[in-house]
Amino acid sequence: MSGGLFITIEGGEGAGKTTLISRLSERIYKETKRRTRSTREPGGVPIAESIRKVILDTKNTKMEAKTEALLYAAARRQHLVEIVMPALSKGDIIICDRFVDSSLAYQGYARGLGIDKVWEINRFATEDCMPHLTLYLDLDPELGLSRIEANAHREVNRLDLESLSFHMKVREGYLEVMKRFPDRIRMLDASGNPEEIADQAWEHVSGSLSGQ
Amino acid sequence: MSGGLFITIEGGEGAGKTTLISRLSERIYKETKRRTRSTREPGGVPIAESIRKVILDTKNTKMEAKTEALLYAAARRQHLVEIVMPALSKGDIIICDRFVDSSLAYQGYARGLGIDKVWEINRFATEDCMPHLTLYLDLDPELGLSRIEANAHREVNRLDLESLSFHMKVREGYLEVMKRFPDRIRMLDASGNPEEIADQAWEHVSGSLSGQ
Repeated sequence: MSGGLFITIEGGEGAGKTTLISRLSERIYKETKRRTRSTREPGGVPIAESIRKVILDTKNTKMEAKTEALLYAAARRQHLVEIVMPALSKGDIIICDRFVDSSLAYQGYARGLGIDKVWEINRFATEDCMPHLTLYLDLDPELGLSRIEANAHREVNRLDLESLSFHMKVREGYLEVMKRFPDRIRMLDASGNPEEIADQAWEHVSGSLSGQ
Repeated sequence: MSGGLFITIEGGEGAGKTTLISRLSERIYKETKRRTRSTREPGGVPIAESIRKVILDTKNTKMEAKTEALLYAAARRQHLVEIVMPALSKGDIIICDRFVDSSLAYQGYARGLGIDKVWEINRFATEDCMPHLTLYLDLDPELGLSRIEANAHREVNRLDLESLSFHMKVREGYLEVMKRFPDRIRMLDASGNPEEIADQAWEHVSGSLSGQ
């Protein structure tokens, strides 16, 4: 992984992950002239996209929490092997929309499977290929969900059908996950304006780049 | 699980699992008048069938071994929760075509992930809802594959594209898995005629039934 940098962006629905990734990529290029590759989970490669379809299909209301956790881990593994690992070994900067911490917050905490148990199957999937830096966009779920509703272009998926109380648990989950990985995860206040958030994100990224 | 009996049938391609399940179900009904439910893995319920499609799609040649192991575990979990657990709690006899041991032999041993590691993610999936009895149909892979080729009705799947040496490793894998679970797994010689095999299978099943 010499020279490669693996950054993940985390947060609840409507926290602004997509916007941040786009602004952060521009900023990194402007400041360093280094290539950035943006990707997302679950998905990013054909096999993982097929798994994504199963996970997010609104018809699949009977999906059990452990099935869901295993499917996310499967999609993660394929995406890591086909995209992340080769990019890192070429020395690229890779920014990924969601990664392990989503599973820990959503399935481990909010669905009640336990952070430790979900971490265990994810260690099988990741083989310790973990992000160098994770930016967690913290936002009141009510605000996040209202942003999503205002976005007419976004397709509704199975997780959007969850209640507000579920999304509040996800937020609690993220705060819990942060305690486990204090060195890796940095929290950003996602209620501010996108430019400020991107500025804060850049501060953290430049710190990671200079530490390389 | 009072009164319920969970039987799994294992073996390489072309070992005669489907035939045995059908004969064994008839025999159980004839001898005990008890209901038998036959099912299969991966699949059996809509979510698991969608996962099955991803696993067996001949286009998915890039599928990594760990992705495959996690997908099997995901399909297994959903099938257990929707079919096996409810059937057992009603006291049914359930016969399942493939279960955990397939993952241990195929992904754990033949693909080289390690039986212990694959067992770990499967414990997450099964929560110790393990079969009372497993019948392993042992057969020379060359004979098994030639049986499949002779069966014009069978659709070719991604695992059929594997080499003979892979299928030989699967057989070695099953023998290794048997050492770990000597009380649960019984080996049957699958080269004999279907009636004799069903007779031997019934001997084991009647033993399990009388032990209840």
